[in-house]
Amino acid sequence: MKLAILISGRGSNMDAILTAIRKGHMPQAQPVLVLSNLPEAGGLTIAREKFGLNTEVLVSNDLKGWEYDKNVMTLLQNYEISPTNGLICLAGFMRLLSPQFVSLFRNRIINIHPSLLPSFPGLHAQRKALEYGVKISGCTVHFVDKGLDTGPIIIQKSTPVLQSDTEESLSGRILRDEHLVYPEAIKLITEDRLKISGRMVLINGEH
Amino acid sequence: MKLAILISGRGSNMDAILTAIRKGHMPQAQPVLVLSNLPEAGGLTIAREKFGLNTEVLVSNDLKGWEYDKNVMTLLQNYEISPTNGLICLAGFMRLLSPQFVSLFRNRIINIHPSLLPSFPGLHAQRKALEYGVKISGCTVHFVDKGLDTGPIIIQKSTPVLQSDTEESLSGRILRDEHLVYPEAIKLITEDRLKISGRMVLINGEH
Repeated sequence: MKLAILISGRGSNMDAILTAIRKGHMPQAQPVLVLSNLPEAGGLTIAREKFGLNTEVLVSNDLKGWEYDKNVMTLLQNYEISPTNGLICLAGFMRLLSPQFVSLFRNRIINIHPSLLPSFPGLHAQRKALEYGVKISGCTVHFVDKGLDTGPIIIQKSTPVLQSDTEESLSGRILRDEHLVYPEAIKLITEDRLKISGRMVLINGEH
Repeated sequence: MKLAILISGRGSNMDAILTAIRKGHMPQAQPVLVLSNLPEAGGLTIAREKFGLNTEVLVSNDLKGWEYDKNVMTLLQNYEISPTNGLICLAGFMRLLSPQFVSLFRNRIINIHPSLLPSFPGLHAQRKALEYGVKISGCTVHFVDKGLDTGPIIIQKSTPVLQSDTEESLSGRILRDEHLVYPEAIKLITEDRLKISGRMVLINGEH
């Protein structure tokens, strides 16, 4: 399965995924492309220099929704990444994908979000969790549907919120868990172990 | 601190609280009254026969909001339970308390809810969690404010959701955790170890 990883920043989840692949943890996953919507995304250099991967930049130029996404589509086609052989991993990609793109890559786009969804979707999830005063937060890997962080959930991992936590300290602790569960979810998908039934994601061979 | 426990059903959390008190786990907590809005609530018999407690029934008779709650108020006064010496523990009490009552007993009413709030407030939280397809749920003890399950959070405990879970099996597993954390929260309050700051509930002496 060909992986395209979409980033907008330092790409720490991208790094975790590529490191897990390099270590041989997901033999069915073939990373092909790292794409950023921002030319200054730090992850682009890491992808090229640490992992020898192809990188591409598609700046927005005020293109919205499918206008932008069809350029992503064309780029994926150039790398021969299709809805049948590909998996698109969002790793801090700061654009909402259009319904058209999501339909084309149905159940082939995944995202990681720094909260236990459905709590705290959208931006600044960790800050929202602190402001709400929850005692437990965490992270969620999910398939991407047309909503904002609403798709079927693959894996969740909980993280205690400490009284002394700042947005930074909580984000850091959640991020360490993200780096564990995102590769785990990709492994399950590339090994064809998941079955999606409505909103349920069932893992073959699990209780 | 005088405890009034409000129930509508079998009162399993009531039983857990009263058992913890009997075992000496909360020496500052003095259970005074169990109140039900339904005469058939099974917990009434348990309160009387197992724990020798006073029980009262206030049927709704279509009384709404403060019209009903002022009768609760009068009853509490009869038992000399006040906002300064009392703690009202909702344990499956199936009425939403009025803003007037909540204001009078500000930060003196607590509730337990079978989800990791703010996910799945309201009725059938476990069913909603299953239908959403979350992998982690749990329970929340919180102060009651004027909203539905929106008050400041005291304790949360997470519970994994299993693929094989039914509403019944998930509810049962969460309930076992409820029986642990509800007495724990009451202990913290009766020992005056909590500080409420906005939505934050801080525990003295915790990290």
